[in-house]
Amino acid sequence: MLVKSQVKYIQSLSQKKSRDQEGVFIAEGPKIINELLSRPNIRLQQLYAIPEWISQQGQMQAGSVMEITAQELERLTQLQTPNQVIGVFKKPEFPEITNYHERLTLMLDTIQDPGNMGTIIRCADWFGIDTIVCSRDSADNFNPKVVQSTMGSISRVQVIYDDLIPFIQQHTAIPAYAATLHGTNLHDMPPIKEGILVIGNESKGIGEQLLKHCRHKITIPRKGHAESLNAAVATGIILSHIVK
Amino acid sequence: MLVKSQVKYIQSLSQKKSRDQEGVFIAEGPKIINELLSRPNIRLQQLYAIPEWISQQGQMQAGSVMEITAQELERLTQLQTPNQVIGVFKKPEFPEITNYHERLTLMLDTIQDPGNMGTIIRCADWFGIDTIVCSRDSADNFNPKVVQSTMGSISRVQVIYDDLIPFIQQHTAIPAYAATLHGTNLHDMPPIKEGILVIGNESKGIGEQLLKHCRHKITIPRKGHAESLNAAVATGIILSHIVK
Repeated sequence: MLVKSQVKYIQSLSQKKSRDQEGVFIAEGPKIINELLSRPNIRLQQLYAIPEWISQQGQMQAGSVMEITAQELERLTQLQTPNQVIGVFKKPEFPEITNYHERLTLMLDTIQDPGNMGTIIRCADWFGIDTIVCSRDSADNFNPKVVQSTMGSISRVQVIYDDLIPFIQQHTAIPAYAATLHGTNLHDMPPIKEGILVIGNESKGIGEQLLKHCRHKITIPRKGHAESLNAAVATGIILSHIVK
Repeated sequence: MLVKSQVKYIQSLSQKKSRDQEGVFIAEGPKIINELLSRPNIRLQQLYAIPEWISQQGQMQAGSVMEITAQELERLTQLQTPNQVIGVFKKPEFPEITNYHERLTLMLDTIQDPGNMGTIIRCADWFGIDTIVCSRDSADNFNPKVVQSTMGSISRVQVIYDDLIPFIQQHTAIPAYAATLHGTNLHDMPPIKEGILVIGNESKGIGEQLLKHCRHKITIPRKGHAESLNAAVATGIILSHIVK
């Protein structure tokens, strides 16, 4: 049976501060849990699962799963509909990045919606981008809503929080490409083998100062009337044209 | 002051049944409200706004705005953070569609997440697609979460709920293109001037029977490791390549 301190601990992990202190994050549901369990760079701390889930697994390491009731799961879940199993995992370990040459890096300026952040991480993973540099005020990549919408890509894409303008200034050899409403037509862009693609905030776009540090501007041509595109959709569209 | 019956009425509009009975929907926040007020095919039923919002408007028709307090707004809102104004609007009126020739139509098979549905509607609007045919079990386009994420495109894109296989059978002259994981490379597709682009459910993709009725299959080439793309992102990527 779950004790009060365990419930409190897991519930605390919905907060960034607690996740950072403990170096862990939570994920929920059979699909993402199985995906994370299979990854070499993520260590499991503890699973909490109802008997239905446990009975479907093969042999698991003793102590790694705690059986709980559906009622207990409801007390732990961050989801609207609890889904069999919750896992507490150590944050993934990634090799240190020594340079940004000969690769495309994604940069996010104040992406605030956790769903967008997760969808962008998943999208980066689809297009083979393994590093995202985010402004410090962007959504935390270990926010439970982000983790759920990455669908497991959280283990393959390294997300770094940094000051964006100094970052670009430290890497002046790498051209930065800003996604904006008034730039070069995306269809006229050649494939980009080396660069930083900058995506802006959901309503304000890329900050004025940051934009000045971007060497190129890219625009997705509009055929209809919407004022803008969702940030994750825009990211996907641009990547689909420049990653070749 | 708001009376109890008004609170009850507005709260009831979070339910599809009530929206359908009344032929109305709700939208919230200055940006989307101003966008909807400017549209010729949407009639306002009633606005409820705090004094800060009202004082920023020019002359408005008498009776169209009811002043409420911030506390009253909190009782009415569907948002986590109430945003100055809530509007009840009659559902938009669209011209009857007489044929599907010489245009691209979007078809959604069981898109369930309201955020995805709204983002897809906005994306269709960006690419000049004015009609979306959805399976009857897709998210309702007048769900408040959908309305919010369309950012106003709800007034320009006609969303029809129908049985998808009979629909395709009735329009056999129009080729259907399925977005799948194993089809023609998107980069090898010519622009599509006439057709139906079919997007599948978030986790299950396009239903097996429906897929059999699609003449072509399109695949977004994967460069990395993610198992799939978010449905709205996939829609945006495909449209960006086939709408020319």
